[in-house]
Amino acid sequence: MLLHPEEIARPLPKEDPRAVHILKVLRRQIGDTFDVGRINGPRGKATLVAINTENLELTYTWSAKPPPADPLTLIIGLPRPQTARKILQEAATLGVAALHFVITERGESSYAQSTLWKSEEWQRHLQAGVAQAFCTRIPEVTHGQTLQTTIATLPADSARIALDNYEGTAALSKCHQAGDTSVAIALGAERGWSPKERDLLRQSGFTIAHLGERVLRLETAVTAAVAIIKAQRGLM
Amino acid sequence: MLLHPEEIARPLPKEDPRAVHILKVLRRQIGDTFDVGRINGPRGKATLVAINTENLELTYTWSAKPPPADPLTLIIGLPRPQTARKILQEAATLGVAALHFVITERGESSYAQSTLWKSEEWQRHLQAGVAQAFCTRIPEVTHGQTLQTTIATLPADSARIALDNYEGTAALSKCHQAGDTSVAIALGAERGWSPKERDLLRQSGFTIAHLGERVLRLETAVTAAVAIIKAQRGLM
Repeated sequence: MLLHPEEIARPLPKEDPRAVHILKVLRRQIGDTFDVGRINGPRGKATLVAINTENLELTYTWSAKPPPADPLTLIIGLPRPQTARKILQEAATLGVAALHFVITERGESSYAQSTLWKSEEWQRHLQAGVAQAFCTRIPEVTHGQTLQTTIATLPADSARIALDNYEGTAALSKCHQAGDTSVAIALGAERGWSPKERDLLRQSGFTIAHLGERVLRLETAVTAAVAIIKAQRGLM
Repeated sequence: MLLHPEEIARPLPKEDPRAVHILKVLRRQIGDTFDVGRINGPRGKATLVAINTENLELTYTWSAKPPPADPLTLIIGLPRPQTARKILQEAATLGVAALHFVITERGESSYAQSTLWKSEEWQRHLQAGVAQAFCTRIPEVTHGQTLQTTIATLPADSARIALDNYEGTAALSKCHQAGDTSVAIALGAERGWSPKERDLLRQSGFTIAHLGERVLRLETAVTAAVAIIKAQRGLM
């Protein structure tokens, strides 16, 4: 269970989904403990002290901060909201440092207007993914920027790989050196990159790679690419 | 779109989901063509010849069979049906040779009674996954066997790795030699392996490995593990 720093000092309202989870799924009773994390802070244990009419009283003991995120940035053509939800959660579970959902020429511009992005919903998917991993570090996320603007924010020495079903000439695992300090991986949306975007990626130092001959769903490609890079670093 | 061999000779009923997809999603009209595959047979092109009151008439031209599946077998503790659906589809898209969903001590035996397994539904998820990959080869699937029975069916020279959050001492990528002819990967269900199952796995030649410190959902672990093995073979 993840908590914002400002939530630590006050009781947890009973209608909060986390309170429901504590009582109904974890079935904790007064005196019981469970794992907890402070968003971008330490992990710890919570103890259920009292169950009141309107809220739960909890006490906390904090231990160490989790290790830093892997220096892995994903740049993803803004996909349909249902796909973005899965990617937000999976990438947060896998522990990337940043996720940038960019406007692409072949993407649907209406996707940027989804309630996923207009409300705080996208943050909930990130938190669920981070909590699944027993971590507290929320990846940095942007959405709706251009590809060019986003590339300009990458560290100069970052390794850069763009995945492309059509023009990738080598497998991802052959393109990446395990020693690189940070890595950015760009994945197009459902309809892929435009010729102009491919030019921009190449001019910006991206190697165009592929994940094999089989056509993967975008969320599958994200998980596969992150796993391959993490394995090359000995982390998986 | 995938077809059973016996469906090739007859018109496609209009209420069939594939017919709906051809007309409503692909928006094909008379004379148009689209990609098609014969299950476990060749890929090809279909041409829409006529739209009748009750069915579509199609003609086919066939090309080569897709390459054989990677010699990769997954053994998975029978998970909740919603998780099994995702794994059936993802593993079929990624192109594994076989998937065995086994009864485990910590699994819920009621999962084996789901309509997913009692009806033909599980086959539909496999076909959707294979079609996504523009392939025709359906992985071999068993469900409800014991771990021991399933291990006994593995080739004697197959590399064997079991994933375990608790007792894995090395990362998956460090345990596997790219030259192995075939690989079996075992993943426990939501609650993991029992001590007895770990003993059986070790006695059967499995190396116990992990995918890092972060706790992944089972379907994420499946995609990550398959991607890492495929990358070591230069396929991703």
